[in-house]
Amino acid sequence: MADSIDIDELACPVPLRDYPAIVLGHGGGGKLSAELVENLFLPAFRNDALAQLGDAAVLPPGSGRMAFTTDSFVVRPLFFPGGSIGDLAVHGTINDLAASGAQPRFLSAGFIIEEGFAVADLHRVVRRMGEAAAAAGVPIVAGDTKVVERGHGDGCYINTAGIGEVPDGVTIGPHLARPGDAVIISGTIADHGMAIMSVREGLEFESTIESDTAALHELVARMLDATHEVHVLRDPTRGGMASTLNEIAAASKVGIVLDETSLPIEPVTQAACDVLGLDPLFVANEGKIVAIVAADAAESLVAAMREHPLGRQAAVVGHVTGEHPGTVVARTAVGGRRVIAMQIGEQLPRIC
Amino acid sequence: MADSIDIDELACPVPLRDYPAIVLGHGGGGKLSAELVENLFLPAFRNDALAQLGDAAVLPPGSGRMAFTTDSFVVRPLFFPGGSIGDLAVHGTINDLAASGAQPRFLSAGFIIEEGFAVADLHRVVRRMGEAAAAAGVPIVAGDTKVVERGHGDGCYINTAGIGEVPDGVTIGPHLARPGDAVIISGTIADHGMAIMSVREGLEFESTIESDTAALHELVARMLDATHEVHVLRDPTRGGMASTLNEIAAASKVGIVLDETSLPIEPVTQAACDVLGLDPLFVANEGKIVAIVAADAAESLVAAMREHPLGRQAAVVGHVTGEHPGTVVARTAVGGRRVIAMQIGEQLPRIC
Repeated sequence: MADSIDIDELACPVPLRDYPAIVLGHGGGGKLSAELVENLFLPAFRNDALAQLGDAAVLPPGSGRMAFTTDSFVVRPLFFPGGSIGDLAVHGTINDLAASGAQPRFLSAGFIIEEGFAVADLHRVVRRMGEAAAAAGVPIVAGDTKVVERGHGDGCYINTAGIGEVPDGVTIGPHLARPGDAVIISGTIADHGMAIMSVREGLEFESTIESDTAALHELVARMLDATHEVHVLRDPTRGGMASTLNEIAAASKVGIVLDETSLPIEPVTQAACDVLGLDPLFVANEGKIVAIVAADAAESLVAAMREHPLGRQAAVVGHVTGEHPGTVVARTAVGGRRVIAMQIGEQLPRIC
Repeated sequence: MADSIDIDELACPVPLRDYPAIVLGHGGGGKLSAELVENLFLPAFRNDALAQLGDAAVLPPGSGRMAFTTDSFVVRPLFFPGGSIGDLAVHGTINDLAASGAQPRFLSAGFIIEEGFAVADLHRVVRRMGEAAAAAGVPIVAGDTKVVERGHGDGCYINTAGIGEVPDGVTIGPHLARPGDAVIISGTIADHGMAIMSVREGLEFESTIESDTAALHELVARMLDATHEVHVLRDPTRGGMASTLNEIAAASKVGIVLDETSLPIEPVTQAACDVLGLDPLFVANEGKIVAIVAADAAESLVAAMREHPLGRQAAVVGHVTGEHPGTVVARTAVGGRRVIAMQIGEQLPRIC
């Protein structure tokens, strides 16, 4: 037929492997997008719901209340000791669900990729995401990819959203701390932030500081099995312990007293904080949980946490008080007290 | 106490209104972040689940199967005739849920903002999102904000994820088209893409081309009430009708024949396509739905669609065939046939 045109023949498609770098067309919804999905995302995220490739994943009914959360990740650099943006994107959203008392069920992943980003690096990121999701038992069932021009991104930004189920009887919230409660942290603080900063600043120590990025939902499930007296859970990411405790103090209209000497911290992390003049209380964690719990349940909760690999160094680090509501105070090593105010802005930009 | 420090007093916080532009600190998880949430996001998105400010929104149990989807929006410019990135971000995710046969229930919103973006513009975007979500009856219950340095973003990128519920008995999927089925479009094509391109290219016509951005879930609910014979639904966004029909043809292993003369298109949109040398079949829509339906239900479905404001110009525009599986063919006005291949890459970058 004279007017019949086969665009395929004119345009000469080439397979993904012949593109060493992302081009705008990979975000165009055409063949290049489809190749990225088929050759890169589906193999890494492997699950039936995603493989349907519908406009939305259709999932089995949930049971009980739903938890729903979202988080974007813009960490720089994309790869760092102990993890990558891919691990963070999976763990961060799982941890937000866990911190609401939910068992995580499903994740989505949205990529905003800069033109020119190496396909090999994207592959590494996506593989790490798939591995992290598989290890956590929380599949990535929905996804999206956009590409922006060079100079309008930074390699790769990732958004993950997540759905979880909140077991009956679990009631946890930042407003539920009560005077007398104990404050518990699941392990050493400031490791993630200092791992990133050490790379950026080119600091070298005898041992490498590794990010603590980890999925906390199994530890949290154990904690909720151990006691019904957990009032607040929160993962102290951006802004660190200081922001987390200030938010809780404000939401619950209570004061919080931290015993600074009881805070677990790796010596190398403390050394890095000292070199850069940073207070570890303000530095991000990506695999730690703060729990506020009735005082008489604190000891058994810490014992239960220590039985889990991610809770080995769990410790009571402070208590809730009816005094100075909305304010967090630290008792220092020399016996003084200092107010731990919420920071104003950004201590460490693009830490997650 | 000699060693007590009040960081507040040292750092002199100022309220949001004193920042005309976004600074890195707005993404830092500290006071500036909190101000953005309290003064900008919460008032615009106003709902109880979001106001809890937990790590995740805790929501009532769903009923039936869940639908879950995600989409990032990087459209340029952020404001255009008929809408904004805010409207798109709400409508796009609602439409992905609707196209899976689900009733949308909840949205999340993740912002990646470039340092220096005007707070007034962010306010406009967020207000439009809030209005769109309220009009659709689908609240934004979870959110996140990150800020990246100047030169690593483009004003504001938005990810929305969404949860819906799929009613019992609804089974819709891109693989369910059958030979003999009718192909229906809910209205005029190519309006969104040409609205964007006209702005970018500075084209002027007697009338302005407006984006068709709209939430389709009520129209879809009516369609599913009208007949149980809807096999496929899809909103033809990036890559337009051509990509959508090619994906369906591939997933269902069928051929699709389009009657090009029956495709509804606004004269001004056609004129813009002609000026820019674009095929409207490849241009994005943001408020249209393609339905593939058993032939004997097509007429009553079109009649039902026309009773809804968003379906006034619904029309049967083609049919599914057992011939040439995987291929979409258009019958042209002059009686010829042409293959409508999936485009390779990007016809119109950053259209959504």
